[in-house]
Amino acid sequence: MQKQPITFQPIGVITTPHKKQKGTPIQPYAARDVAGEVHVFPEYRDGLKDLGGFERVWLIYHLHRASSAKLSVIPYRDVVERGLFATRAPCRPNAIGLSAVRVLELDVKSGILKILDVDMLDQTPLLDIKPYVPRFDSYQNSKAGWLDDLGEDRDIADDRFPIR
Amino acid sequence: MQKQPITFQPIGVITTPHKKQKGTPIQPYAARDVAGEVHVFPEYRDGLKDLGGFERVWLIYHLHRASSAKLSVIPYRDVVERGLFATRAPCRPNAIGLSAVRVLELDVKSGILKILDVDMLDQTPLLDIKPYVPRFDSYQNSKAGWLDDLGEDRDIADDRFPIR
Repeated sequence: MQKQPITFQPIGVITTPHKKQKGTPIQPYAARDVAGEVHVFPEYRDGLKDLGGFERVWLIYHLHRASSAKLSVIPYRDVVERGLFATRAPCRPNAIGLSAVRVLELDVKSGILKILDVDMLDQTPLLDIKPYVPRFDSYQNSKAGWLDDLGEDRDIADDRFPIR
Repeated sequence: MQKQPITFQPIGVITTPHKKQKGTPIQPYAARDVAGEVHVFPEYRDGLKDLGGFERVWLIYHLHRASSAKLSVIPYRDVVERGLFATRAPCRPNAIGLSAVRVLELDVKSGILKILDVDMLDQTPLLDIKPYVPRFDSYQNSKAGWLDDLGEDRDIADDRFPIR
């Protein structure tokens, strides 16, 4: 059993217009055209080469202002309690965020990636960037449990998950 | 600048038939129908409720046997060097893996999730489970840079990324 803690080091920071939780879009599709930047620290910049050809990238980041974990939550888009792992709520045992954002412009030298559809809070610590590859990542008709039963409303965060 | 290390605790372990790197499928689409199990530790099991209705889930895990980071790699599916962040190669600054696997069966009480399309090594430490939601995650026609120029071959790992 692998129960040892695992330590990661941020590789950069994500800057966005979202300074507080309330009003922040809860997913990239609800943040259409909202611009932000990824600033990759100097020691990792060489790894950005070839990323400009991708329309989208996955950002994996630390939900650095999430409150402590709850295993049962009422998600933004629902009215009843759901198991945490059946939601994308931020108060997770490991506060890891995942967003597919659009790539607008890449400058390897300065380490700046201009992105669109940003749904994370300003100054979010970045852990990894992966290319979005439809063949690996896109399952258009995948059934989505309780989320399939909901309408299209309520895509903006309120203050139900207090932040630090 | 957020440069402090971030420490996570595994929430479970993924068991798979892949005991060694060579021959392991490099992505779920290349591991079609390969069965594995997620074993969630007792203290997190309540969070699994409602997950059974999802056809796929994201597993976010520690690439625990990846060798040290390289910023430039020749990916499995290519013959020239690419920037690490434009690849899904395991030797990343933060060894975080991401796979959308199919859910076959969920037992909340035992914490066991039977899954298909597993592409990770046996005994991989699990960090997070998120529901796969097409509206959040599926971008069928997203351009995929250098990967769009390749054929369909070479989907199985060889030994180019030595493991620990």
